[in-house]
Amino acid sequence: MSRRTGVAVPTIKFYVREGLLPAGELTSPNQASYGDAHERRLRLIRAMLGAGGLSLARIREVLAVVDDTATPVHKLLGEVAMTVAAPLVPPTGEAAEPSKRSRRRVAELAERRGWEVPPGHPDGDALALTLTEAERLGHEDFAGTLDAYADAAERVAEADLEYVGGRAAVDDVLESVVVGMVLGDAMFGSLRRIAQAEESRSRYEVRAE
Amino acid sequence: MSRRTGVAVPTIKFYVREGLLPAGELTSPNQASYGDAHERRLRLIRAMLGAGGLSLARIREVLAVVDDTATPVHKLLGEVAMTVAAPLVPPTGEAAEPSKRSRRRVAELAERRGWEVPPGHPDGDALALTLTEAERLGHEDFAGTLDAYADAAERVAEADLEYVGGRAAVDDVLESVVVGMVLGDAMFGSLRRIAQAEESRSRYEVRAE
Repeated sequence: MSRRTGVAVPTIKFYVREGLLPAGELTSPNQASYGDAHERRLRLIRAMLGAGGLSLARIREVLAVVDDTATPVHKLLGEVAMTVAAPLVPPTGEAAEPSKRSRRRVAELAERRGWEVPPGHPDGDALALTLTEAERLGHEDFAGTLDAYADAAERVAEADLEYVGGRAAVDDVLESVVVGMVLGDAMFGSLRRIAQAEESRSRYEVRAE
Repeated sequence: MSRRTGVAVPTIKFYVREGLLPAGELTSPNQASYGDAHERRLRLIRAMLGAGGLSLARIREVLAVVDDTATPVHKLLGEVAMTVAAPLVPPTGEAAEPSKRSRRRVAELAERRGWEVPPGHPDGDALALTLTEAERLGHEDFAGTLDAYADAAERVAEADLEYVGGRAAVDDVLESVVVGMVLGDAMFGSLRRIAQAEESRSRYEVRAE
């Protein structure tokens, strides 16, 4: 498996010890055999570590959700998405409380979009916190971009679910959600910067040179 | 300034020592006075540390670009965007080389969009690497979502530049680029997860329960 995936043997052993990867079948005292499921799992771990930049602790959480087949599909999707999501690190020393104004803005956005974002919703709270940071920086107008961002988010979510929906088995569905969340974030980040450079070029190049 | 911003005095002193914040004017042996520019800079640092999750080293780089007024505006915009951008951490042990196929896909996308993404472009390379990771995971079809993501990225970039374009002074333009890049990423992340949950609910809820 080390040869097939390019991952060093001590690294594979480390993942097994850490409980991320099931142990292989011992074929001799110092030789273990690993099947397709192992290989797939190993590649998934590497993707989360690499492009996803997730910590080992977070990867363990994601895999626990993927391996738990007791809850309905859409709940699992939500949980995986939530677990993969980057944590919001509140700036130390400042109260990490969203302002009333930013909470209202999030509630109004949800209302306009027909989204269910009740108070206490982790992503709704994170969004309100981001808007509060913008306010603190004297950029409360940045909230004016909310609807354009929401349009874009809906376009991406549609493509993600279209992709996921093409899979038949629950295992495949979940794996593709993880791939989509992790790689999709990286993909969107690159595309956003390219699109900004293009937009910026067309707006400023003539004026500035 | 500590009272006005909620940032502890030792933390402010630390930023001054680290060269992130210019020293205030000494009004007595243990009392310094800080103006509006200081306060604005301090809030910007906190936003990059907090919602942005940037390291002190990266913040120093961003501020160096913002403070350098010798280059034309659109170049500065590009540099700030590049500096704020999260680095792609290639998985150790695997060759961090994009596949030919993923390079071709990026080139074709750029062609379709009329984007300038020559070989060696950092974001183009990062994008190709993400697609290569998807291939390694057996998800080469994930590249099928590229155009939907690119549509969304263009929508966001338009809103970002619209926001930035409303500013008159170069200093303000650059500051709003930093705010937009850092807070925009956080904002889009939250919105994407909310939109995915909505899309997932409408697709799976009935079937799964």
